[in-house]
Amino acid sequence: MSPIVESVPNFSEGRRSEVIEAIVAAYSSVEGARVIDYSSDPDHNRSVVTMVGAPAAVSEALFRGIAKAAELIDLNQHEGEHPRLGATDVVPFIPIREITMAECVELARELAQRVSVELGIPTYLYYEAATRPERKVLARIRKGEYEGVKMALEAGDPDRLPDFGPSRLGPAGATTIGARPALIAYNIYLTTDDEVIAKNIGKAVRHSSGGLRYVQAMGMLVEGRAQVSMNLLDYRKTPVHRVTELVRREAARYGVGIHSAELIGLIPEQALIDAAQWYLQLDNLKPESILEWHLK
Amino acid sequence: MSPIVESVPNFSEGRRSEVIEAIVAAYSSVEGARVIDYSSDPDHNRSVVTMVGAPAAVSEALFRGIAKAAELIDLNQHEGEHPRLGATDVVPFIPIREITMAECVELARELAQRVSVELGIPTYLYYEAATRPERKVLARIRKGEYEGVKMALEAGDPDRLPDFGPSRLGPAGATTIGARPALIAYNIYLTTDDEVIAKNIGKAVRHSSGGLRYVQAMGMLVEGRAQVSMNLLDYRKTPVHRVTELVRREAARYGVGIHSAELIGLIPEQALIDAAQWYLQLDNLKPESILEWHLK
Repeated sequence: MSPIVESVPNFSEGRRSEVIEAIVAAYSSVEGARVIDYSSDPDHNRSVVTMVGAPAAVSEALFRGIAKAAELIDLNQHEGEHPRLGATDVVPFIPIREITMAECVELARELAQRVSVELGIPTYLYYEAATRPERKVLARIRKGEYEGVKMALEAGDPDRLPDFGPSRLGPAGATTIGARPALIAYNIYLTTDDEVIAKNIGKAVRHSSGGLRYVQAMGMLVEGRAQVSMNLLDYRKTPVHRVTELVRREAARYGVGIHSAELIGLIPEQALIDAAQWYLQLDNLKPESILEWHLK
Repeated sequence: MSPIVESVPNFSEGRRSEVIEAIVAAYSSVEGARVIDYSSDPDHNRSVVTMVGAPAAVSEALFRGIAKAAELIDLNQHEGEHPRLGATDVVPFIPIREITMAECVELARELAQRVSVELGIPTYLYYEAATRPERKVLARIRKGEYEGVKMALEAGDPDRLPDFGPSRLGPAGATTIGARPALIAYNIYLTTDDEVIAKNIGKAVRHSSGGLRYVQAMGMLVEGRAQVSMNLLDYRKTPVHRVTELVRREAARYGVGIHSAELIGLIPEQALIDAAQWYLQLDNLKPESILEWHLK
């Protein structure tokens, strides 16, 4: 087996299909790095690419995607609902297999430096790659968006200085690059049409209001069924089975149950194996207990 | 991805280490077929090899192992607790990936014919490869063991005729070859030292006494803890999560719970993913929802 990283670059174009296709083509142009999905939202005027591959190949592909977006997107002309700071807005490195988070941090720093030197684009480091505690959180870096950060830099605000590159924003803005664990986005549907129950459960399980540490959650009504919509930010520390069972217990308190659940996007295989191990109480399950391990 | 089969040949030597090693070496001598485990039981005087690989490579390796066992084992000199009919006693083909059960049946028939023609060893077809309903069950083919079948064939009993090869047994006996689903052997430990509870639960969940169709189970006391020891003969039809939850419910009726569970040998990855899907209620989980699917 060889090291595999995932990346989910976001770029600030979700309407002009020829621009989207040209940028995705740049991400797809390196052997050993594969674009496995991309989607565009016209209201957000933003696209999200999912790619996997060998670390060096993914880094090179990300560089080409960032270069192409800088060439085709002018943030002075950009409008959309989603907050954005750069033509390529955010680029995470995510360890998947045989690579540590520390190695992904190193990849993030190298790419951030290269982008600043070769493309003249200011870059910020976030999450595990952050150089200042407050920059762990993407929203803090992006606060004020392109227009606000541009002004702050012109005013010489030292808190907003990029980690690499010039301290002024051109039409491509700035790009935030970092390393983080794989994110699991999933929704649990309840056996009720009472949106209030979903909202209460979302509040109970999410970190921001006292719940589990690596959970973001909100309740809503989707096609007549109450839904708890969640992001799990670190499934190794706050696993999907624990979140599910806490939602189940909170729902029971209202006399309702879990109807079904759905993934949005991808889930790392290990998250499912961890869940099976927990529910089946297979305390000593080892990777080599799984038949397919011997085929790798 | 390419087709992968598993095989778990059993041969009738568990004491003479030089004989065991020579036979395992024969199983290991084909590129594309890998011996991932083997174990020998001196009381049973029998060894079990686990191998995986490409279908043609596994077939060739099985042929070489059968030939070597016939050369080194004389059943007239063999004693052991485990019932046995041949120097190589039983050889299952197990579909793992990108291969159907029907294709494994075909592999079993081809190997059974080749063994009879090239080695002069009578072969029987069992389980999914059986040509007569009563031969689905290995124990029926092996009834009377080497000595009993030898006499029955000498007496001209038509019910005991092999599927291929001569209708008499030489010193290598006969080999039973077939195709079956992957077997999961696992034990559930209860939060009690009362062996009677484990025996009652074993009886409740096993097929032979009215329980789930593809379950063999028995209760016993292991290191001071009641244990339900089980084989799941077809985890796609009787899945491990359903068995676990039925054991849990039966245990609750005696006021006890599940302490932990353990696998004996290997489990197909799909059995764990099926369990995670069931417990997490991910109704629409698709293979391509799993990130690693895109790396294969």
